[in-house]
Amino acid sequence: MPTDAQQACFEAGIKFGSLYHQFAGTPVSPASTRSLERAMAEAIENQPFCEAVTVTIHDDRVREAIDHENGYTELTGSLMDVTMRIDYEGVTVRTRMEMADGYPLMTLVAVEE
Amino acid sequence: MPTDAQQACFEAGIKFGSLYHQFAGTPVSPASTRSLERAMAEAIENQPFCEAVTVTIHDDRVREAIDHENGYTELTGSLMDVTMRIDYEGVTVRTRMEMADGYPLMTLVAVEE
Amino acid sequence: MPTDAQQACFEAGIKFGSLYHQFAGTPVSPASTRSLERAMAEAIENQPFCEAVTVTIHDDRVREAIDHENGYTELTGSLMDVTMRIDYEGVTVRTRMEMADGYPLMTLVAVEE
Amino acid sequence: MPTDAQQACFEAGIKFGSLYHQFAGTPVSPASTRSLERAMAEAIENQPFCEAVTVTIHDDRVREAIDHENGYTELTGSLMDVTMRIDYEGVTVRTRMEMADGYPLMTLVAVEE
Repeated sequence: MPTDAQQACFEAGIKFGSLYHQFAGTPVSPASTRSLERAMAEAIENQPFCEAVTVTIHDDRVREAIDHENGYTELTGSLMDVTMRIDYEGVTVRTRMEMADGYPLMTLVAVEE
Repeated sequence: MPTDAQQACFEAGIKFGSLYHQFAGTPVSPASTRSLERAMAEAIENQPFCEAVTVTIHDDRVREAIDHENGYTELTGSLMDVTMRIDYEGVTVRTRMEMADGYPLMTLVAVEE
Repeated sequence: MPTDAQQACFEAGIKFGSLYHQFAGTPVSPASTRSLERAMAEAIENQPFCEAVTVTIHDDRVREAIDHENGYTELTGSLMDVTMRIDYEGVTVRTRMEMADGYPLMTLVAVEE
Repeated sequence: MPTDAQQACFEAGIKFGSLYHQFAGTPVSPASTRSLERAMAEAIENQPFCEAVTVTIHDDRVREAIDHENGYTELTGSLMDVTMRIDYEGVTVRTRMEMADGYPLMTLVAVEE
């Protein structure tokens, strides 16, 4: 039988994969970063055991990624930071998406029983 | 050569398919409908020739679709109404997503030159 | 510091959330189930530590879900079974998506060190 | 009232937006390009009036896009070519996704009545 801590980590992973693959590819510009951040956080917070999600889309990175003729780009991991807190049966799991060697990496920050 | 009106209709279709397949499946509850509506509209308005998008997610339909244990459902066409206005080289195209026989149908409402 | 087993469970969750939210909403009919199953499995097997993925889309459930006029439906969890094996630093995690009370549930089946 | 040709162009656009936003972000490597191409084509061919879809994912571009440590990348428009044929009430529409100035552009190639 998996432990509660293992189950909590599994749940944390589900939320991360969900957030990334639901929203990657969304058209984004500096005019729409705030609404997208909020919708992403609130959508994933609907999922079970997901207590808190923060999404920060960096306007300066969005601006750099934009083709000036198009005026927008597609959301990818390199444009944002994400943190999450999952609570499962008394276990708290904290996760973060951060850049590592130029690539976005989903990280298990802490598992607190 | 396609006409400007045909090109405008093609652009209108692209926006509709984009909106639907980018956001279908997003976890949604009455607590997150407003942020999702806004993010969807602002995301698609980034695309070229897309002048205005309105998204209305019906809280009552979301509530009915929710499994009371889970507390959320996944976004599908039957939960929302969408309208769009595309302007391309002087042609205005209006589209709408509406229910027909219980299924969401994307409709070309008007093409105005 | 998270343990290897916890990290393995986190990785397993990421793969599940990725698979579900990348492919939910895909148009599917009995004519396209085999190619979609294979593409889903091979896509997710690209992700780190993901050793094996099986996806079974049930033709009979797809047929039942189809509006006879449209000829297709959208992929959701209730139409398919999924199993995965994740190997992380000597820990093997097995997961499964199964129906519970009419809803698809992602389950951590076993964690083997 | 929109003409049949305009309606056909609208339908063509829907298919393009659907294909792009359903599958962009899918993990892909040279080992999974063939199955993804086939699944994408067969999925979108399910949609109404969509007679033929071809998807070509370029293995060499996938290889160049891959971080050698990860072994995979995410599908984007720059990695593939797409063609479609839509038939609506006797009107045939041909579309193509091609690179223009380094960006993928969805193009209405021909409208034949």
